Amino acid sequence: MSSFDALVLALRRLPGVGPKSATRMAFHLLQHDREGAELIARALGAAVRDVRHCARCNTFTEAEICLTCLDPERDAAQLCVVETPADQAAVERTGSYKGLYFVLMGRLSPLDGIGPSDIGLERLFDRAGDGEVREVIVATNFTAEGEATAHVLAEGLKSRGLKVTRLARGVPVGSELEHVDLGTIAHALVDRR
Amino acid sequence: MSSFDALVLALRRLPGVGPKSATRMAFHLLQHDREGAELIARALGAAVRDVRHCARCNTFTEAEICLTCLDPERDAAQLCVVETPADQAAVERTGSYKGLYFVLMGRLSPLDGIGPSDIGLERLFDRAGDGEVREVIVATNFTAEGEATAHVLAEGLKSRGLKVTRLARGVPVGSELEHVDLGTIAHALVDRR
Repeated sequence: MSSFDALVLALRRLPGVGPKSATRMAFHLLQHDREGAELIARALGAAVRDVRHCARCNTFTEAEICLTCLDPERDAAQLCVVETPADQAAVERTGSYKGLYFVLMGRLSPLDGIGPSDIGLERLFDRAGDGEVREVIVATNFTAEGEATAHVLAEGLKSRGLKVTRLARGVPVGSELEHVDLGTIAHALVDRR
Repeated sequence: MSSFDALVLALRRLPGVGPKSATRMAFHLLQHDREGAELIARALGAAVRDVRHCARCNTFTEAEICLTCLDPERDAAQLCVVETPADQAAVERTGSYKGLYFVLMGRLSPLDGIGPSDIGLERLFDRAGDGEVREVIVATNFTAEGEATAHVLAEGLKSRGLKVTRLARGVPVGSELEHVDLGTIAHALVDRR
């Protein structure tokens, strides 16, 4: 196989990249951006070598404990559980949460064979039972899998005597009722305040 | 910047990849497919090191001259001009062309600042003037830019006394007239046989 074909095949390991996109990417890099190709190769090598999981919150970090977990300004009584580092970043951007996090690095998905041991469930239970955490805020996604994960989490955490809350469901800010789906409106009615 | 963020930034050099896709790719590789990450890094390194342009047809190759150009079974009197190696592969798959190729590695695109010197125009004129080529088949894409490129090519080649032909425009095989665009039907009427 030529180096070009090998590159196309390798790029197909990226999620959401099929044969046509992979060919287009390989062509672009080799014809117009060899510097970019070398940059990506170096970044991949460095990330595979350096990136590990925070021993406390399970997110990606290059140290034993991540900077967020080490921050003394954070409220150690609150623990927010999210699926991915991107979800954690979304909560951080609001600027309205000052507690700590636990990142599952996935969600329960029985159809894909992802069970409790494949995501950090046991580690979460250990972490939440450190004696300092008072409330666990479950912020998994509001998808079928995220909701199922939230349910399993909540059961396990409550049985350990912890207070468990869930992000509120409701009408998104800035949206018109006419264009909001029925399930969301129904939940917003039930949770009205 | 963390190695993770550096990886996200590097992946955005890929065409068609924005911040969200890049984050998803980085997460997938580091969480689920570190072997894939290393594979891609190695393939990029090898391709940047080994892939060059064929001295005759300008396509990607790892040798001085590519295998197609070296094939003695090929008819050296016909030269098919395409924009990219993917287009060359599409013509090859038909199995109905036995001549040689020239790959422009791009198209004229004044709006993007891509002029005659940015694609292999002068090299094509040299190649087509080797004394063996009798007919140049222009197989650039049937887009505005591909047609403009074809026009400039044809002018240059004809002024050098070469016979220039263009792939036929017409109704695609298997399509219903009802669903074919007007421009295509108009061309098919003019070029009827």
